[in-house]
Amino acid sequence: MSTNAELEARIENDEQNLNQFFLLIMGAVVMLMQAGFAFLEAGSVRAKNVVNILFKNVLDCFIGAVVYWAFGFAFAYGDVSSDHPSAAANRFIGFKYFFSIDVDEMPEFYASWFFQFVFAATAATIVSGAVAERCQFGAYIIYSTFITGFIYPVVTHWTWSGTGWLQNQLLESMHRHAYDADGSAIVHCTGGIAAFMGAWVIGPRIGRFDKNDNIIAGHSTPFAALGAFILFLGFLAFNGGSELAIVGGDHAIVVAAAFVNTIIGGSAGAIFAVTITYVISWIKREPCYWSLLVIINGGLAGMVAMCAGCNVLHQGAAFGIGAMGGISLLIFS
Amino acid sequence: MSTNAELEARIENDEQNLNQFFLLIMGAVVMLMQAGFAFLEAGSVRAKNVVNILFKNVLDCFIGAVVYWAFGFAFAYGDVSSDHPSAAANRFIGFKYFFSIDVDEMPEFYASWFFQFVFAATAATIVSGAVAERCQFGAYIIYSTFITGFIYPVVTHWTWSGTGWLQNQLLESMHRHAYDADGSAIVHCTGGIAAFMGAWVIGPRIGRFDKNDNIIAGHSTPFAALGAFILFLGFLAFNGGSELAIVGGDHAIVVAAAFVNTIIGGSAGAIFAVTITYVISWIKREPCYWSLLVIINGGLAGMVAMCAGCNVLHQGAAFGIGAMGGISLLIFS
Amino acid sequence: MSTNAELEARIENDEQNLNQFFLLIMGAVVMLMQAGFAFLEAGSVRAKNVVNILFKNVLDCFIGAVVYWAFGFAFAYGDVSSDHPSAAANRFIGFKYFFSIDVDEMPEFYASWFFQFVFAATAATIVSGAVAERCQFGAYIIYSTFITGFIYPVVTHWTWSGTGWLQNQLLESMHRHAYDADGSAIVHCTGGIAAFMGAWVIGPRIGRFDKNDNIIAGHSTPFAALGAFILFLGFLAFNGGSELAIVGGDHAIVVAAAFVNTIIGGSAGAIFAVTITYVISWIKREPCYWSLLVIINGGLAGMVAMCAGCNVLHQGAAFGIGAMGGISLLIFS
Repeated sequence: MSTNAELEARIENDEQNLNQFFLLIMGAVVMLMQAGFAFLEAGSVRAKNVVNILFKNVLDCFIGAVVYWAFGFAFAYGDVSSDHPSAAANRFIGFKYFFSIDVDEMPEFYASWFFQFVFAATAATIVSGAVAERCQFGAYIIYSTFITGFIYPVVTHWTWSGTGWLQNQLLESMHRHAYDADGSAIVHCTGGIAAFMGAWVIGPRIGRFDKNDNIIAGHSTPFAALGAFILFLGFLAFNGGSELAIVGGDHAIVVAAAFVNTIIGGSAGAIFAVTITYVISWIKREPCYWSLLVIINGGLAGMVAMCAGCNVLHQGAAFGIGAMGGISLLIFS
Repeated sequence: MSTNAELEARIENDEQNLNQFFLLIMGAVVMLMQAGFAFLEAGSVRAKNVVNILFKNVLDCFIGAVVYWAFGFAFAYGDVSSDHPSAAANRFIGFKYFFSIDVDEMPEFYASWFFQFVFAATAATIVSGAVAERCQFGAYIIYSTFITGFIYPVVTHWTWSGTGWLQNQLLESMHRHAYDADGSAIVHCTGGIAAFMGAWVIGPRIGRFDKNDNIIAGHSTPFAALGAFILFLGFLAFNGGSELAIVGGDHAIVVAAAFVNTIIGGSAGAIFAVTITYVISWIKREPCYWSLLVIINGGLAGMVAMCAGCNVLHQGAAFGIGAMGGISLLIFS
Repeated sequence: MSTNAELEARIENDEQNLNQFFLLIMGAVVMLMQAGFAFLEAGSVRAKNVVNILFKNVLDCFIGAVVYWAFGFAFAYGDVSSDHPSAAANRFIGFKYFFSIDVDEMPEFYASWFFQFVFAATAATIVSGAVAERCQFGAYIIYSTFITGFIYPVVTHWTWSGTGWLQNQLLESMHRHAYDADGSAIVHCTGGIAAFMGAWVIGPRIGRFDKNDNIIAGHSTPFAALGAFILFLGFLAFNGGSELAIVGGDHAIVVAAAFVNTIIGGSAGAIFAVTITYVISWIKREPCYWSLLVIINGGLAGMVAMCAGCNVLHQGAAFGIGAMGGISLLIFS
């Protein structure tokens, strides 16, 4: 018969295994978001650019894996170990575990690497949509390598590693969830700023904003919808998975709350975006119709808007924030 | 070192966390069934109606989330708490937790809400296929709101809440699995009856049943197949997830048995439907061919037929019931 | 309050439940690989053959389920029970549990059956791609029944059942992971040899290798990409799930390592295949372009190449093996 110490060790070990299981599943679903982005974008561009878009998303995943294995994880988390008390660590950048060397000292390395890698690849992928139909292929490879291997990892080191300057110096007085919340800022803000800069430098598609303000229609609504359905699923895993654990304490409740707020926020964004679009057309006495692309993008805007606080807010707040996300979409696009 | 009481509390807490994890994963896969229904239907209708179908399925999910958050969960489970012993509760309808107010008293609320919401949205979605290509959009929104926010929740309160009249007065003497079984009746019967009424009231598409009994062919078999593959996966989560727990007792065995019976029942339905169709053509000396839509719909019919008893039956029975599901499809469609 | 023996029994039971949960989830994702193969192949063939390809993959799943339930599991694992010490069992073939009779003595039967069935169906499906566009339908049904119901189960009995001759007589002196590794050989080698034989006997499509060495182009790159994204996800579950357990010991670390090596190996295969193709075109002064089908198939080749050792190798080795997989693709296709 086992002693209490043996039972406790066994429970402890089981909990660690199961939290890795959680990270692997959530990470796998987040990895599938590459397919979601690929099809949302492929459906939203002209037919001639479909293969280009699909290629970029496949590439983000594969280049991301190699680069994040070689450098990214080391820059992001390469000073988290029992040998380096957080006070002594580098506050700007990590410096070991390149090419996953010496990771045996970190039993949960593999699950952690996988989860962090899919987030890095997702941050990179955000840009692919913003520069769709007008970015040179070679330039895209350089960009994707650089953001996954250096920019994103350094930003995550500042905020998520436990030893970064942003987290320790700026956020130390804030409570735990404020820190979690920053997680989504890391991905969406880093990706979003890169996307904005990319779109700005490259400029619009030829003819998009000449005096007629042409809409360049997408070629396949079903592909866009397929991408959206995959992304709706992916955002649950993205927001829920950011808790990083499911067993022990109240992790499951926090993860479940993130799921609920994500879907409520997304719903509010979708419903506000599509209804306002309809009403504006009606007021302008233009032909009124319900737009699939507006409801889809409104839903995604609502989910992105919800990311930051999805694990702590009440659903009423999630509804309001999601609605603002949907409205922002209409204003800024 | 921990005492036995501390260890027991820790195990208890871990089990609760993990059962919520189970609900979240199964629920996420069931939510993806919206994509499955969307593509199965989109592939089975004429090209001009594809966007309409996709829009409805996206909308079911988003309207469903808001309405089920505002009213549905309250009507369905709004009297399940330690303060309200089941004997004292309302047997017809629940009356609290509107807009998820006061849910702090119910730690597993979020996981439970999410799982129940995706089932409600699935029940609503069944109708979308039945009235495909001929329902006004405004009417559909009203319908979707009403069934997700009121009809389905009240039916679930009667049967699943622990305090409903159907469960307590009619089923009390039956053993636990009879109660579980009702679960699928709730979704499929409620959805199915609503779908049947909707199809009846609206009537067939113009030209569908004139003297030539025209088949109005779908426009994309690959889309229908994509939807079917997603639904095959979804039904595993739908039937397995209905057990509501994976850890503790023999839950895992029941869930696994539900998986096995679902796939065996679906296979029997598919094989019977496609073979009988072939043989009938052969007897009538018509051109014989193996039909992808028949095997897909036969498989789904078999899986639906299996829902009720999927967690208790032997696989031989699952095979027989699934086969009857496949045959019913041929008779009634 | 519980005694230590009661706590230990409870932990034991929880672990068994959770390992079944793991098998069910991984198995469900592996089952979705049928959709991945279906769309990868459907996108890679001419439009006239799409329905045929989709039909075969749906059928593999359904015929596989019935046949593996009736015979396959019995042949593969039908002598694993406490009544039959491994020394006394049949080393060539199992002999009980036909039609899942008498499985009550094996509590984990259902989860185990489901996981083994999806692997059998996957092995069968490999051939469908190899004989695409030129196999008679009736012949395919006979083949699929035979490989899922007999050939694959007997091969797994030899190696995975715990009582087979290959494992016991040839591999006994090798350590545990060598045995695991064989797992992927079982699926990919059995499927691959059958595919090779099938392709050899049937011969190439008319006109494929006449003096002009025609490339017969696929009709839909997006479908192929959709299939590929699903397969990338599926391979994680395929390679990770082969560990068969997640809780207890260091299972989670092994599963996570398999995830990491699969994605690193796949990335290496993809990057090498697409880069070499580009460079060769450049050297030959032909038009250079980045090919989506080459990067997809390179990634899959890398993942397949990684299967055997994905749970033990360092990532540097995974990179090298995956790269060889990508190069092999270019040489042999």
